[in-house]
Amino acid sequence: MLNVLARLKNMRILLGQINPTIGDLSGNLNKILEGINIGKQASADIVVFPELSICGYPPEDFLYLSDFITACENSLDKIREASKGCTVIVGYPRQCTINPNNLYNSAAIFTNGQLIGIQDKILLPTYDVFSERRYFAPGSPPHLWDLCEKKIAITICEDIWQHSGLLEEASYPFDPILELKKQQPDLLINLSASPYSIAKKDTRLKVCQKAALSLNAPVMLCNQVGGNDGLIFDGYSMHVGKDGQLKHIAKGFEEDFLLVDLDQKSATPRFTDNSISDLYDALVLGVRDYFHKSGFKKACLGISGGIDSAVVAAIACEALSSENVLGLFMPSRFSSPGSITDAIQLTKVLQMAWKEISIEEPFTSYLNLLEPCFEGKPFDATEENLQARIRGMILMAFSNKLGYIVLSTGNKSELALGYSTLYGDMCGGLGVISDVTKQNVYALAKWINRNGEVIPYATINKPPSAELRPNQKDSDTLPKYEVVDNVVQAYVEEHMPPAKIAEKFKYSIELVNELVKKIHKNEYKRRQSPPGLRVSAKAFSVGRRFPIVQRWV
Amino acid sequence: MLNVLARLKNMRILLGQINPTIGDLSGNLNKILEGINIGKQASADIVVFPELSICGYPPEDFLYLSDFITACENSLDKIREASKGCTVIVGYPRQCTINPNNLYNSAAIFTNGQLIGIQDKILLPTYDVFSERRYFAPGSPPHLWDLCEKKIAITICEDIWQHSGLLEEASYPFDPILELKKQQPDLLINLSASPYSIAKKDTRLKVCQKAALSLNAPVMLCNQVGGNDGLIFDGYSMHVGKDGQLKHIAKGFEEDFLLVDLDQKSATPRFTDNSISDLYDALVLGVRDYFHKSGFKKACLGISGGIDSAVVAAIACEALSSENVLGLFMPSRFSSPGSITDAIQLTKVLQMAWKEISIEEPFTSYLNLLEPCFEGKPFDATEENLQARIRGMILMAFSNKLGYIVLSTGNKSELALGYSTLYGDMCGGLGVISDVTKQNVYALAKWINRNGEVIPYATINKPPSAELRPNQKDSDTLPKYEVVDNVVQAYVEEHMPPAKIAEKFKYSIELVNELVKKIHKNEYKRRQSPPGLRVSAKAFSVGRRFPIVQRWV
Repeated sequence: MLNVLARLKNMRILLGQINPTIGDLSGNLNKILEGINIGKQASADIVVFPELSICGYPPEDFLYLSDFITACENSLDKIREASKGCTVIVGYPRQCTINPNNLYNSAAIFTNGQLIGIQDKILLPTYDVFSERRYFAPGSPPHLWDLCEKKIAITICEDIWQHSGLLEEASYPFDPILELKKQQPDLLINLSASPYSIAKKDTRLKVCQKAALSLNAPVMLCNQVGGNDGLIFDGYSMHVGKDGQLKHIAKGFEEDFLLVDLDQKSATPRFTDNSISDLYDALVLGVRDYFHKSGFKKACLGISGGIDSAVVAAIACEALSSENVLGLFMPSRFSSPGSITDAIQLTKVLQMAWKEISIEEPFTSYLNLLEPCFEGKPFDATEENLQARIRGMILMAFSNKLGYIVLSTGNKSELALGYSTLYGDMCGGLGVISDVTKQNVYALAKWINRNGEVIPYATINKPPSAELRPNQKDSDTLPKYEVVDNVVQAYVEEHMPPAKIAEKFKYSIELVNELVKKIHKNEYKRRQSPPGLRVSAKAFSVGRRFPIVQRWV
Repeated sequence: MLNVLARLKNMRILLGQINPTIGDLSGNLNKILEGINIGKQASADIVVFPELSICGYPPEDFLYLSDFITACENSLDKIREASKGCTVIVGYPRQCTINPNNLYNSAAIFTNGQLIGIQDKILLPTYDVFSERRYFAPGSPPHLWDLCEKKIAITICEDIWQHSGLLEEASYPFDPILELKKQQPDLLINLSASPYSIAKKDTRLKVCQKAALSLNAPVMLCNQVGGNDGLIFDGYSMHVGKDGQLKHIAKGFEEDFLLVDLDQKSATPRFTDNSISDLYDALVLGVRDYFHKSGFKKACLGISGGIDSAVVAAIACEALSSENVLGLFMPSRFSSPGSITDAIQLTKVLQMAWKEISIEEPFTSYLNLLEPCFEGKPFDATEENLQARIRGMILMAFSNKLGYIVLSTGNKSELALGYSTLYGDMCGGLGVISDVTKQNVYALAKWINRNGEVIPYATINKPPSAELRPNQKDSDTLPKYEVVDNVVQAYVEEHMPPAKIAEKFKYSIELVNELVKKIHKNEYKRRQSPPGLRVSAKAFSVGRRFPIVQRWV
């Protein structure tokens, strides 16, 4: 009896917060085997890996390919062998042996070199960026697992969210936590691939706290980390005590192996409450993984002297290292003298290469070519777009000839209203700040400058301008960005009806309707925008689907 | 008793195959009210409209907006009133009164000015182009409705598909037809929004036949018609007798009101077995609705003298009328003399306007600008792309200045392999043949020429070329299109593993792997392609989702 108690006292769990690459089965397997080794060296009883960590999350339509599923299942053999001396819990896609049409999002449980069971995910998120019902069948109600002489509940991501009451776009008829409560587990383990959005870790903590308090048991959540296309996983795996207190938390935005001795007392850690530093780290990770996971290392972007391109340049230099970032300053007849000064100052501080290429010659050449066709019609958005498109073409020529990936620098506020040129400044392989509002672009600049001037103060202080016609200002065409951002947040992220938005912010209904109309009118542009890093609860490029042709708005 | 029998003999049903616009609630309501009137004039007992016909299918994330749902439900009032003297069955999104988080894809049943009941859709497709689990909760098992002294089963689209065994990407644990079989209905009515793909109507007929034979009852399927973004609904509403024979079929690709006297004998109609004429009609409808439903009428496109742009021009002229279509011939130093002749001949036959704009001047201007940056590196895809992008910019300038929508002319085979220029020939508001294989482009040309030369024979007979470098041919870079199309069909549409493809077609595994690799490598381009008309079982732009960054392939 003493031995058992001693054993219980010393139970150790390692949360393997790894950064898998979609479909890199051997690379992901190596990370898992490495994690198991770390666990063994630390005398961990259980080593946990994230949801679908064998293949990376989200694998999307690879799940339709039978050879992909077979290869994922084959990866389990080596994990089973490595589990000698401990317990390993790992997420993978499982084909049903009885009905091969059914695929499950599952956790395999290995102990001492044996597969002792499988727990399937029960609640399958199919909203926002999630499409799990597209691929998976729901698992049966959960039961407890006898592991290391404890009764342990094993759940996968969404399974613990219904109970929190914090889901906004989904509601399930079944609550696994309520079912588990009847069974009185000693511990709940959750395998997650829960993507970042601003302040998401606070929500995730609340979800774990609610489960811990309801079950009167500790909760261990092991989250994926890393960027996969537009989705960024923040990590922050956590241990919440049965009292609902956060006991341990893994690092954010990097791989980490969090060892928890379940019954050893620990000081309650606190989240660093800086959503802007998290946002910055998320964008850096998103850029880095987009490039490195696809085998690229060099980025180029247009540097205008404005704040958007300056912030993107700073993020790119941090993510890819300055020597891999090239800024092109491409002035036209409308560029202000301050722009070149600001652009050069930025590139000097960031220690990145830059080139100046005037767009005057091709611009004139297009004007001459098109003038006879346009029969004296006045200068309008056509000529503005020509300039933006020439710049896009030059960037793409650098990409094609020299192997750079072009970074797109448009922000969410512009993208919402279509204040951007399709095939122009919307060119690029990745939209770095396409889900960042203009106000948050300023907040990022301030954060980047926290230890001194990186983004030139002149860039921050001048009124935003596209500089595509004489003395142009964004405010000629758009309301204040504060207004734009409030409406975008309420309409796009919260699905709030225009009348309620007008009431909430005391804006005229005409103004709100005009902005909402612009949001829908520009759907066609956004449909062709580069994939963007998702950092809000509702990004344009993933997780939001509206028809282009419609007459509702 | 005699009266009852007489009534049974004379039961008439009108299938209102309407073309709704997404979110055009008043327009759609008017079509429905008009249909009810037609039904009454024809002494129809029951008038049926398609799935979600109140708002049009698919409404996508409009279903998340509470004011949209309320407005849809409000539309029902006028339909209820109009139902005096008959029964009306109409599809709409229904918010659950008990749990407002739950939305159903429902059919409202009105008789004589009263709502007599609601039938919710049970099977919710969430694969390919469908995302119904994103929005809807599944309905309860079906029961029969006493209507016009018959026992009638009412189902919505997918509800009758599980029973057919013809679903390829889904499998449901429940089969509504088996449940209904126990209840012995006199008739099954199905409200559909079943999108077109090549030969889909044959599959749909088989689904109805299987249901009719299992139930020993006639099946009436009322389908939506029209284009909504990339999805094209073909109509072809049908009546299948309890013997499994097709008894009546509505028109394809246009609105139709099909009146069926259930017990009157009718000659068995046959489908016109011409999948190419259907494909042509589908593309014409797709283009027309994309423009007209969004309030545009003029299209422009680049005419190269090649077959892709020729076929798109012919489709555009049919869809929008020739006077609304402008072709731009934009030769470079690499254009062959035959190209201009062929392009001009085409525009003459089609009676469309055209302009010639040489791209030499801007091309030279870019070459001069970039030469110092590119340090003597040889001519490569960069310079090819420059030409395609200049053409794209000119087309977009016409669009911006003069209100044309640019039609993109790339075909599916090119798009699969990335044999196209992002922001170049991939520019446009709509990809007309982006889901048509190169072989089917030739088949369409032949069909367009069925009564004489429209697409110049020279265009059809010359080897395909992008004309972006001296004496270039597609075959310099790509295998034969027959090979490409077979691999794309098997891998993209059927998810066949490469080894099986090689075996099936007796191609080398290296060749198949190389093509599959190209398909994945070019995901990043397709992600930014214009929305395309979907005509195959698996189109690139909708219904297929693969990560850009991945290491599986």
